[in-house]
Amino acid sequence: MRDVSIVGIGQTPISEHWDKSLRHLAADAVLAAMGDARVERADMLYVGNMLSGEITNQEHLGALIADFVGLRGIEAFKIEAACASGAAAVRMGYIAVASGLADIVIAVGVEKMTDETGDLVTGGLALAADGDYEVPHGLSFLAINALLMRRYMYEYGIEHGDFGNFAVVAHQNALNNPNARFHIPLTLDRFDRASPIADPITMMDSSSIGDGAAAVVLCPTSHARAFTSQSVRIAGSSAATDCLSLHDRKDPLRLRAVEYSAQKAYRQAGIGPDDIDFFEYHDAFTIMAALSLEASGFAEPGKGTLLAKEGAIALDGRIPVATMGGLKGRGHPVGATGVYQIVEAVQQLRGQCGPNQLSEARYGMTQNIGGSGATAVTHILQAWE
Amino acid sequence: MRDVSIVGIGQTPISEHWDKSLRHLAADAVLAAMGDARVERADMLYVGNMLSGEITNQEHLGALIADFVGLRGIEAFKIEAACASGAAAVRMGYIAVASGLADIVIAVGVEKMTDETGDLVTGGLALAADGDYEVPHGLSFLAINALLMRRYMYEYGIEHGDFGNFAVVAHQNALNNPNARFHIPLTLDRFDRASPIADPITMMDSSSIGDGAAAVVLCPTSHARAFTSQSVRIAGSSAATDCLSLHDRKDPLRLRAVEYSAQKAYRQAGIGPDDIDFFEYHDAFTIMAALSLEASGFAEPGKGTLLAKEGAIALDGRIPVATMGGLKGRGHPVGATGVYQIVEAVQQLRGQCGPNQLSEARYGMTQNIGGSGATAVTHILQAWE
Repeated sequence: MRDVSIVGIGQTPISEHWDKSLRHLAADAVLAAMGDARVERADMLYVGNMLSGEITNQEHLGALIADFVGLRGIEAFKIEAACASGAAAVRMGYIAVASGLADIVIAVGVEKMTDETGDLVTGGLALAADGDYEVPHGLSFLAINALLMRRYMYEYGIEHGDFGNFAVVAHQNALNNPNARFHIPLTLDRFDRASPIADPITMMDSSSIGDGAAAVVLCPTSHARAFTSQSVRIAGSSAATDCLSLHDRKDPLRLRAVEYSAQKAYRQAGIGPDDIDFFEYHDAFTIMAALSLEASGFAEPGKGTLLAKEGAIALDGRIPVATMGGLKGRGHPVGATGVYQIVEAVQQLRGQCGPNQLSEARYGMTQNIGGSGATAVTHILQAWE
Repeated sequence: MRDVSIVGIGQTPISEHWDKSLRHLAADAVLAAMGDARVERADMLYVGNMLSGEITNQEHLGALIADFVGLRGIEAFKIEAACASGAAAVRMGYIAVASGLADIVIAVGVEKMTDETGDLVTGGLALAADGDYEVPHGLSFLAINALLMRRYMYEYGIEHGDFGNFAVVAHQNALNNPNARFHIPLTLDRFDRASPIADPITMMDSSSIGDGAAAVVLCPTSHARAFTSQSVRIAGSSAATDCLSLHDRKDPLRLRAVEYSAQKAYRQAGIGPDDIDFFEYHDAFTIMAALSLEASGFAEPGKGTLLAKEGAIALDGRIPVATMGGLKGRGHPVGATGVYQIVEAVQQLRGQCGPNQLSEARYGMTQNIGGSGATAVTHILQAWE
């Protein structure tokens, strides 16, 4: 098995891209990543996407995007794992390079969501939940997260306001990310006054959909120096699953897939949570932020919001999160999000984050979650030494 | 890179399964394959599927099916490449085992299509074509194949009746396949009298949709003997792409993705078309049968139907095809088809095909095509020696 590194990154701003089709967005990110890596060819392309069939009336994205970026002929597939599709595509690229079958692999995550009405998008996102046992009861994705949040508050005696720091930090960090969907500062007071959506979840607990694409170029670490002096090594790559339905889980507040995948990634990298310098977590809702920190070993069960309250998740804290805005501030184009997380982690490890740059970031962890926790894909990235 | 073998196979009959959901079909195939390989665990699961989001209102099939078959927790993703999704999932499994990351990988192809009306299915299948430049003009998948067939007949002076042997052989071979959708003998005379659908394509040129699932268990060849004395080695595995739109191709009668993927598979296996003992080709329409034979090196351009006319594609011919019925006779549950082809090739190489058993089958080739040729996934399987 070969060691794998990231030698190129690209991303589009997350926005309502009325002037760009799905393939244009993907091409913008892929061509930027290829330019960054200074490569003109690739052996394989993996496309992370969840909803192109439902929203854009287009499947078969592998061949479509390979052709459109000038790589007609190469092997290319679409990878789907709900909101974890993006990191799943990177994971497949990692495996292909590690295997020795391919020397240059591109993984792109793309999602175009704002062409359709909210109803269709809400229905589309519900495809990540159990279509036989959850959705027919009217459970939207938002509702599932509201159930989780209510249970968490009850179980651990947490107030809604305690979740506010997750959103405040995300919006703060997004201010300096030109690709973020939002550049709107948020205060705890404004968090408390946000409109409810599905009690206890309010507008400010929720990340926003959007259109966007992000891409990485992968190659064997042994070749990486030939491309760039700024390569970033994949020290850990892992994925795990859980049941789709909340009601099938012994303890719904315990994200087992996240636990498994984090443990596997730590084991592969030979490090633990204390060695991680920043964490690009999956804060689709503030409750997922808390649960992810706990399942990944950064906080005890029920203590995730405390970590946030203490300031540990700020850029100068013990475990900075969402350093470029996270899902809440940067936006959450579902199938693309996992690749955005990895692109931003590479930016941190290369020292390209401007005012948000962490000092001495050596290991960054990214974690992309599908559904209410049924898929988790974790990567640990290591700065070139 | 490790050598990879198939140590277990499973399949459901292809039918209108009103009594089984998507997950039940997939589980039937996966559990049969696991039983066949005598394994109780797996490291990864790849699900080939095209239309679960559009037809069954369910995405996130990786985690869903892993959980339902008793493998909750393992890494699992859905792979999509239009009608080539099934073989693409096997290809991902091949890469994962070859890489050394996983010792037991299951690939399952599943599609449930008959729950919905024909309009929705026709619309769903059109997602494999170019959604910006083909579909808006009213081009269904059938229409695209009709254009190809008409062009082929014009270019090479072929009559519609010349395509009949592809369908006759497929239906003949399906008679002895208990899992085939059709057990209806077909004659050339009946082929000529079939109802037109999209001129020149008639009902008897077209394969049928259906519900079904097929699965394989993969492991390193070095471990294969521990599972079964009937393992089958993957001597070649490859994928290639082309543009989605017919109008973007210099010569639409030349399937470039098929050419590339066949050549890559031959090269890997160290053999050529003359060494292939049977060919499970992608006869979604009779025109695709002819074009596949030509692009894979079994016939000169324009001579595919001649090969059929001469009897070369029969079970006792030079290059038997669709030995268990092919897409036309067995049925074509799109995302599952590629795995059915591989399962049937394993049956042939194991000597389990009953009246359809070939004598001395050493190498079998399977080829799964997405769209009108934009994705091709080719495998060359080799009998244990």
